[in-house]
Amino acid sequence: MMSENIVEILLVEDNPNDAELTILAFQNNNLTNRIKWLHDGAEALDFLFASGAYTGRDTNKAPKVILLDLKLPKVDGLEVLKRIKGDERTRAIPVVVMTSSREERDIVESYELGVNSYIVKPVDFDQFTEAVCLLGLYWALLNQPPTA
Amino acid sequence: MMSENIVEILLVEDNPNDAELTILAFQNNNLTNRIKWLHDGAEALDFLFASGAYTGRDTNKAPKVILLDLKLPKVDGLEVLKRIKGDERTRAIPVVVMTSSREERDIVESYELGVNSYIVKPVDFDQFTEAVCLLGLYWALLNQPPTA
Repeated sequence: MMSENIVEILLVEDNPNDAELTILAFQNNNLTNRIKWLHDGAEALDFLFASGAYTGRDTNKAPKVILLDLKLPKVDGLEVLKRIKGDERTRAIPVVVMTSSREERDIVESYELGVNSYIVKPVDFDQFTEAVCLLGLYWALLNQPPTA
Repeated sequence: MMSENIVEILLVEDNPNDAELTILAFQNNNLTNRIKWLHDGAEALDFLFASGAYTGRDTNKAPKVILLDLKLPKVDGLEVLKRIKGDERTRAIPVVVMTSSREERDIVESYELGVNSYIVKPVDFDQFTEAVCLLGLYWALLNQPPTA
């Protein structure tokens, strides 16, 4: 079991297939016990701002990266991104949008809102796995997060 | 010879050893002909804003990523970052700080200024090469840049 205090990768994804595939890919990099899967935008905001079911969570323990889908139930991914980058408590946390959308307006708006990186999910199984591995290595191991 | 119009990776680095090692590492990923090496912060700003020696350059052709050292002659890396992220013409371009500094204030200030990613250069030769390969694959191939 994982303590919420050692979440390194926060995965916000409503599609169970994509989430399971992502978590499986992380297993190859031994990152699986540091990943927390949240299923919609409202849960993500509750987690990040320690509200609702996550009241009392220590928000000083920020994840190293947030992997954020765009098409999410309850609160849309772009709105979650806006809230994260608009609040000084969370704005420094790296956010990677991981989406099936190649729409120019989603890409442009994500960068305008301050996204750190924007990844289009490969449709092909092997390419999806490769992309997630590369992404996990980059953000969990190579990137220096804002807080020690 | 490379046209300035197809710069995919802009490397701003005053240390020739680090620059050569970075360019060598990119060769392994066949990215070498898309990289442009600039030697100081003033040259970086001239390139990005089409001033000085780069007057007339087509600024619509943005690089996919800027690799930015912090300790730079003429104009400091943090000042270059501030100028890039403070100008709507350039703010969406992904910037990765690549530095030997692990100082908390450099890390915190980079994220506050809107850096997309912060990498501490590994001292070990093999680790440096590996880090640059991973970085190149991630930003030149996987990340979706803000403009098509």
